[in-house]
Amino acid sequence: MPRSCSPASVLTGLVLALACACGGDPVPERAAAPAEWALAVHGGAGLVRGEIPAEHERALIGSLERALRLGAGMLDQGASSLDAVEAVVRDLEDDPLFNAGRGAVFNARGENELDASIMDGATRACGAVAGVRTVRHPVTLARRVMERTPHVLVAGAGADRLALELGAETVDPAWFFTERRWQALERARAHGREGGGTVGAVARDRRGNLAAATSTGGTTGKLPGRVGDSPIVGAGTWADNTTCAVSGTGRGEEFLRHGVARSIAAWIEHRGVAVDEAAARVVRDVLQPGDGGVIAVDRDGRIAMAFNTDGMIRGAADSGGRFEVAIWE
Amino acid sequence: MPRSCSPASVLTGLVLALACACGGDPVPERAAAPAEWALAVHGGAGLVRGEIPAEHERALIGSLERALRLGAGMLDQGASSLDAVEAVVRDLEDDPLFNAGRGAVFNARGENELDASIMDGATRACGAVAGVRTVRHPVTLARRVMERTPHVLVAGAGADRLALELGAETVDPAWFFTERRWQALERARAHGREGGGTVGAVARDRRGNLAAATSTGGTTGKLPGRVGDSPIVGAGTWADNTTCAVSGTGRGEEFLRHGVARSIAAWIEHRGVAVDEAAARVVRDVLQPGDGGVIAVDRDGRIAMAFNTDGMIRGAADSGGRFEVAIWE
Repeated sequence: MPRSCSPASVLTGLVLALACACGGDPVPERAAAPAEWALAVHGGAGLVRGEIPAEHERALIGSLERALRLGAGMLDQGASSLDAVEAVVRDLEDDPLFNAGRGAVFNARGENELDASIMDGATRACGAVAGVRTVRHPVTLARRVMERTPHVLVAGAGADRLALELGAETVDPAWFFTERRWQALERARAHGREGGGTVGAVARDRRGNLAAATSTGGTTGKLPGRVGDSPIVGAGTWADNTTCAVSGTGRGEEFLRHGVARSIAAWIEHRGVAVDEAAARVVRDVLQPGDGGVIAVDRDGRIAMAFNTDGMIRGAADSGGRFEVAIWE
Repeated sequence: MPRSCSPASVLTGLVLALACACGGDPVPERAAAPAEWALAVHGGAGLVRGEIPAEHERALIGSLERALRLGAGMLDQGASSLDAVEAVVRDLEDDPLFNAGRGAVFNARGENELDASIMDGATRACGAVAGVRTVRHPVTLARRVMERTPHVLVAGAGADRLALELGAETVDPAWFFTERRWQALERARAHGREGGGTVGAVARDRRGNLAAATSTGGTTGKLPGRVGDSPIVGAGTWADNTTCAVSGTGRGEEFLRHGVARSIAAWIEHRGVAVDEAAARVVRDVLQPGDGGVIAVDRDGRIAMAFNTDGMIRGAADSGGRFEVAIWE
């Protein structure tokens, strides 16, 4: 089950109670009034406490704060939730610290294959790409699949070709090479898997529309062609104005076989529970300890962050002045 | 909304009331007692009444009857639901009348790209492949992904390579060429899309375990790399012993963005409704007329078949002696 929430790493001197979704006794929301806008961001749930140098931890916090500030500024200025989650994920895709875009992990053949999705809660329109190798911002290609094709999900070489047709920026596969991820592959080949680093964002904008986006390089040493939960609507991503927007991170196969994101929405749809209870029920009762976590936001701008790992790199901001980033439970 | 159910095409002189899921006034089940085993099969929901020659209609009915008899015989002999749905779908994958395996439609580049998935309701284990071009039985490769890899979904060239490693039968891409589907591509290029022909099966075995499988060639003229709902757990396929097993057919993008199969299961999980009501609510209230249909079976062996198209090629059999195949409403 998810650990209780006492944020250990808090940025810029602020000590704020994170509104985590943590099992039977959820932490009460700070404000009962709906937020005009709200944004949550994650950067993966695979870190293990004590295994990460303090300097790297500070860098992760700094990057997530930058992305959170970018999205919060957009939402505050009236941007749509769809534009905000895309911008936040694009920012993190260019950051080599995260397993998405630049910084993506390597598969068993030493290649990078990237997955991403985006969903518009107002219409349930969605787009996704899987296994792209030459697209700088997979989340933007996902959005173009949503807006400019009759399809939802395009995979593999066809998706790379589609990027050219749709004008999504392409790069040489070498763009994605980072020494740290290459070493991770070498270590994984010797010892097992390295977790984490998927990025995602969920938002509620001033018009009350929800959106979610997720982007990942998948798992180190994965079989070529393996698709995880991140590009699968209902598994790693979901957005529906009547329930909530969700982005997940963790063991993708578990998120896929339990339909995690859609299952959280179903708790709200059918039982009318609060978003933090919905997230906690699925992360605690359906997933297993160590599987990962989710961020979610509901139509009133309430944010939930639930995880059953040591930590989840996460941030939350809203129109009420909340702005916080943390890693550990 | 789904049309009311009065089977017009009934095989071998049998006139049986189909237990369809049809909105607010479901047809009562014939038997209140749980069936020891039950099987439902579909062969697509894209046909339009009056546009299909009688001879072709008879051939479709005959093929579906053959597949239904195969699976029913296995279940009657005590086979697992997982083995039965795989065998039924394999049978239909080799049948050029259906848009799966041999007989698959062509994409916009004149290629066949095949998708399939399978799910075990006892464990929620699942496997899927997307965009394979050289695999005779995509559903069997999906099962091997489930049983012999740590992954759930493998797409594109990586999946074709994996077939060699896992010993799934491969064929020259020319195996999938059928003149009828080639002509369909030519017509689609001129006039629009041809619908239908995805195949699927859901079963409850004598031990009470549920399973589902779906296989397709996708949509005629699709963009290369397009992945529909069939290989996506939660969209086109779902199986969970606590709720139901589902296989869908129709406009894949709509099934994806509404998470159709998982949504049906959620109605049972959260509201405790019968499987026919759950299927009807999603097909009628969430999907739009013309989108397609589903077959489903619950833990008591009750079968639901709901569609909002002119027809759905479908069959149902159970341990109580039911054995029926039909196309139109």
